[in-house]
Amino acid sequence: MVRVGIIGATGYTGLELLRILENHPEVDIAWVTSESYAGMELEEYCPAWRRRRSFTLRKQELSEWIKEVDVVFLALPHGLAMDYVPFLLQKTRVIDLGADFRIKDVGIYEKHYRLEHRARTLVEEAVYGIPEIYRSEIRKAHLVANPGCYPTSVIIPLYPLLREGIRFRSVVVDSKSGVSGAGKKATEEVHFCEVDENFKAYKIGEHRHQPEIEEQLKRWGEIGGLTFIPHLLPLRRGILSTIYLEFAEDRSEKELWEIWQRYFATEPWVRVLPGGRFPELKWVLGSNFIDMGLKKLREGQVVVISAIDNLTKGASGQAVQNMNVMFGLDEKIGLPATVLYP
Amino acid sequence: MVRVGIIGATGYTGLELLRILENHPEVDIAWVTSESYAGMELEEYCPAWRRRRSFTLRKQELSEWIKEVDVVFLALPHGLAMDYVPFLLQKTRVIDLGADFRIKDVGIYEKHYRLEHRARTLVEEAVYGIPEIYRSEIRKAHLVANPGCYPTSVIIPLYPLLREGIRFRSVVVDSKSGVSGAGKKATEEVHFCEVDENFKAYKIGEHRHQPEIEEQLKRWGEIGGLTFIPHLLPLRRGILSTIYLEFAEDRSEKELWEIWQRYFATEPWVRVLPGGRFPELKWVLGSNFIDMGLKKLREGQVVVISAIDNLTKGASGQAVQNMNVMFGLDEKIGLPATVLYP
Amino acid sequence: MVRVGIIGATGYTGLELLRILENHPEVDIAWVTSESYAGMELEEYCPAWRRRRSFTLRKQELSEWIKEVDVVFLALPHGLAMDYVPFLLQKTRVIDLGADFRIKDVGIYEKHYRLEHRARTLVEEAVYGIPEIYRSEIRKAHLVANPGCYPTSVIIPLYPLLREGIRFRSVVVDSKSGVSGAGKKATEEVHFCEVDENFKAYKIGEHRHQPEIEEQLKRWGEIGGLTFIPHLLPLRRGILSTIYLEFAEDRSEKELWEIWQRYFATEPWVRVLPGGRFPELKWVLGSNFIDMGLKKLREGQVVVISAIDNLTKGASGQAVQNMNVMFGLDEKIGLPATVLYP
Amino acid sequence: MVRVGIIGATGYTGLELLRILENHPEVDIAWVTSESYAGMELEEYCPAWRRRRSFTLRKQELSEWIKEVDVVFLALPHGLAMDYVPFLLQKTRVIDLGADFRIKDVGIYEKHYRLEHRARTLVEEAVYGIPEIYRSEIRKAHLVANPGCYPTSVIIPLYPLLREGIRFRSVVVDSKSGVSGAGKKATEEVHFCEVDENFKAYKIGEHRHQPEIEEQLKRWGEIGGLTFIPHLLPLRRGILSTIYLEFAEDRSEKELWEIWQRYFATEPWVRVLPGGRFPELKWVLGSNFIDMGLKKLREGQVVVISAIDNLTKGASGQAVQNMNVMFGLDEKIGLPATVLYP
Repeated sequence: MVRVGIIGATGYTGLELLRILENHPEVDIAWVTSESYAGMELEEYCPAWRRRRSFTLRKQELSEWIKEVDVVFLALPHGLAMDYVPFLLQKTRVIDLGADFRIKDVGIYEKHYRLEHRARTLVEEAVYGIPEIYRSEIRKAHLVANPGCYPTSVIIPLYPLLREGIRFRSVVVDSKSGVSGAGKKATEEVHFCEVDENFKAYKIGEHRHQPEIEEQLKRWGEIGGLTFIPHLLPLRRGILSTIYLEFAEDRSEKELWEIWQRYFATEPWVRVLPGGRFPELKWVLGSNFIDMGLKKLREGQVVVISAIDNLTKGASGQAVQNMNVMFGLDEKIGLPATVLYP
Repeated sequence: MVRVGIIGATGYTGLELLRILENHPEVDIAWVTSESYAGMELEEYCPAWRRRRSFTLRKQELSEWIKEVDVVFLALPHGLAMDYVPFLLQKTRVIDLGADFRIKDVGIYEKHYRLEHRARTLVEEAVYGIPEIYRSEIRKAHLVANPGCYPTSVIIPLYPLLREGIRFRSVVVDSKSGVSGAGKKATEEVHFCEVDENFKAYKIGEHRHQPEIEEQLKRWGEIGGLTFIPHLLPLRRGILSTIYLEFAEDRSEKELWEIWQRYFATEPWVRVLPGGRFPELKWVLGSNFIDMGLKKLREGQVVVISAIDNLTKGASGQAVQNMNVMFGLDEKIGLPATVLYP
Repeated sequence: MVRVGIIGATGYTGLELLRILENHPEVDIAWVTSESYAGMELEEYCPAWRRRRSFTLRKQELSEWIKEVDVVFLALPHGLAMDYVPFLLQKTRVIDLGADFRIKDVGIYEKHYRLEHRARTLVEEAVYGIPEIYRSEIRKAHLVANPGCYPTSVIIPLYPLLREGIRFRSVVVDSKSGVSGAGKKATEEVHFCEVDENFKAYKIGEHRHQPEIEEQLKRWGEIGGLTFIPHLLPLRRGILSTIYLEFAEDRSEKELWEIWQRYFATEPWVRVLPGGRFPELKWVLGSNFIDMGLKKLREGQVVVISAIDNLTKGASGQAVQNMNVMFGLDEKIGLPATVLYP
Repeated sequence: MVRVGIIGATGYTGLELLRILENHPEVDIAWVTSESYAGMELEEYCPAWRRRRSFTLRKQELSEWIKEVDVVFLALPHGLAMDYVPFLLQKTRVIDLGADFRIKDVGIYEKHYRLEHRARTLVEEAVYGIPEIYRSEIRKAHLVANPGCYPTSVIIPLYPLLREGIRFRSVVVDSKSGVSGAGKKATEEVHFCEVDENFKAYKIGEHRHQPEIEEQLKRWGEIGGLTFIPHLLPLRRGILSTIYLEFAEDRSEKELWEIWQRYFATEPWVRVLPGGRFPELKWVLGSNFIDMGLKKLREGQVVVISAIDNLTKGASGQAVQNMNVMFGLDEKIGLPATVLYP
């Protein structure tokens, strides 16, 4: 059994971690913390948990607890994890769902997050947590930086193409996300009357996931210019990314499919759709799958479409998948494969 | 032309007032105020107004302005209007969209709103603003207390029955409202992810509209016990009330229809649906209509269903209808009759 | 292992059965049929199933198959099951998710469903499938009539009160359901543009679940008049019923809570909420729970609110719960307790 | 007064025409037809119309009627208008909301719509109905081909740039539409449970609006390759297009703004948003505005975002705007400028 602790259990990613870990046959949740709701029973905070297991949300008293656990999940706003991680790593392994350790180029991080990084030396050590790419590093990692939701939807489908030497002249990512990606905090932006029956682009050319996507893709090949524009969908869960690729050299659709097949046929959480079929959010809802399809539009022009549940494969599901890798467990177990439909 | 001022233009009812009044052929909007956004252009605050008329949201400087207007609309949270009204009434007429002057029994008001009333003497003078009931009083009124949204949906259909001497043994009101009724303020209650795909009852047995409904109905007859339970719908606009009536003496469905016909056939904003047809929110969306239907279920048991747009007939539309009455205008003009469908 | 067959797997209740049974540790799904999609792979029909277990949707060839299974689930439109059941019962046990065997009074069934019953002698034998009430009969049953979704939400909370001798002078049930209750068939009624941002009552005084509710409640006590009005919510899953009770003799809230506690404290799928808390659809979404709360409004007047997922506890979840009872399994296993939130 | 007839009034665009024309001060609606609902009162078909003007939906008896009208609006599925238009043009002017006369290259039309064109000689004569581009031709036109919804959202913002000699190396249009664009017909595609909480791309590389966009843009300049992928939003009204432009020669953001200002400053229905602001569907809902913003992302790379109400500026509103032009009326009058918010 892997004994886990969760710091920051009351946001949407924290609650999603609990949803998954409580059903994980190889996990024992030792403790969960919440700054804002310390002392409250989880079922009081979130009545979905009535008549299930009882947890008390606790204030952090880490020095005692970290002896009890094998891994700590951090589900905190960015800028906070960097203060916990150095201490935690003395006794335990860490999976950080925030942004602090995702970007290797600390200058880029500091510029985009407008923060000084207070644990710079750990950034290099952190492994970027996409098992489909970094499995062997994750296995040994002490610190996993769980990727952003948008980056997950973009990097997984493009990685094999780049890895196989395909060079892009440009990559345009038009992403659409459900509202849970904005977090649980009440703001006018997420007021029901402002989101329902509405649709918009936001943070155009300024979203913090852009440098994360860029850094990862550039590790594997030539991407030309990267454009990334996120949009807000009037729904709760899901990211669909429509990715327009311009190739430096033309490739056939068949060739691209074969690359995907080669990389993903044995991946438990990647579903390459057959030709002519494309992802829809409803087919991944609540599951850890990433679905993807592609179509060649004309010479040198290909569109890739991917879909994930932003809280599952886009956050907490992938975090648990990383945990499975870190502790030598079957990567499939304990993760939701069942979709809630309709 | 009626010259109007609006105090508190940036909430949902204030913006709805602007939507209506700007299209009113007999109205000249002299000024609009906002405490929180003073100095901002309306089109900056609410881009729906770009390329339409330009308004600057102003800080209150009432002493100068009230000379310029014939009537002031107050669209403020409860407890604030009572401090403006005594001053305003010295020079102008007032339509208050808040709760401060709706309930004649000041003790009841103070208990339910947990406030001391600071303008008690004006409560008696205020006319409760349902034109279908109090038209002649509204015509002469200096102060109109515009009704609550839920009360409007209940009082209009029941009034003629009570007025005609039908006595109820009990009245059960099961109301369902869209989220705009909760106002524009960002709270966790109205976070998109908490409302979307959800439905719940709230303030069970404690909603402040209950005493308002009760006082009005009791003016016109015997209602036995009143039960009122509001629910929150995952949509933006609309209230549908399902009202279960137990009669002290049995009546035929035909008799009830005839009463409604007698009272409402000439009412421009009341639509009595033919037998077998019942209201739906989509048929009133954006309009000032109240739709209503009824069915006799068995001896002494009748269900009445009514539907309004909570921001229009349930708030700002009715306020403008009251203004039309106060200034001797045709009650139909300037009010939205067109429904946005689909 | 219980070997099961499913007849009619491609409607929403059929797909929900598959969602649940595929995760049930004691179940082996032997075959699934579909008239309309026979020959198609399940994952073609419903891409949520890609990379999970593969099923071929088959045409019925029952005579061979029923030897292989211990129980058959029927998820068919009403009026069809009555032709399958006599044959199936020769070799296997049956759980019918349709309406054909729910109502003991065949005359009432025939009147409301406008059908002649072609398997009348089996109606008496059928056990009404609410384990919380008929557990011992279900254990031995060969034919379980799985209840309607609305009836489930009403009968479970009222049964203990009636059983304990509380007599009602009237019961008013104001129910609100998500759209999946209307089934998967494309009609104008369920067109997105007709449902979204809309709300309405329907089949007022004419819904077929009314006689089902009435027959069940009257078995256990005196209910006075029953009123039942269903409404359509703009969401996918869930039923919330607001039930207004008038008692023949007054009872304290405490007394009612104690009755519920006595009946439900050990029930794995019933959650009685603490005083002052009431159900919301989001806390049961995707789970087999029924949540309930109550409040005394005034002398002799009580409101009960219940919430279920209409496809789970309201249909396929309850069907599997019945299967667990029939085969002596722990009633908790294989059923979804985890809620998808947000 | 312009006397108008409407053929095909019961689809969503037909009903939207009625919504607009009934409020148009210079229009007299002479007759409205419906094949499927002939003989029914409009208010029976669509209860939004109760207590407003009464219309009887009639069977086509065009030979008599066309004498009475100045213009006929055709709101029919594609392939039908071509049989009406030759006859209608003998006596009246025509605005066709369908696709039959939009594409000048008949071969392209026939290929994409899989139809033989039966009125080829009229295609050349038809004027493509975007007043912001073809105003002087529309003024004199006898036959206006009202544009598709997606093309409207793309062509208007790009036209001035092309006209001013800017050459594109590629144009990528990622469009997202509400469900009303799919029409009123009940299909599984538009079942509430299939659309709600879902999002998907559709007709990837195959949508019939692609050749329409392409033909129009190429009239005005060099566009390189055009990619167009539509997506389906879980909401009722609105199209937002995110358009990624690669320029053959770099231009400054300021230069592009100035071009837009020059072309659109006096256009009543085009709103160019100030720098840093971008369109949202909620700010155009129910209005005839097209909102647009742009941002330079890096050298030679610009994103343009536009938003319209697909039923208004994207269909019936633009049709009435065309009518205003054809009959020498002020282009602003009779068209909805007021947005329903929230």
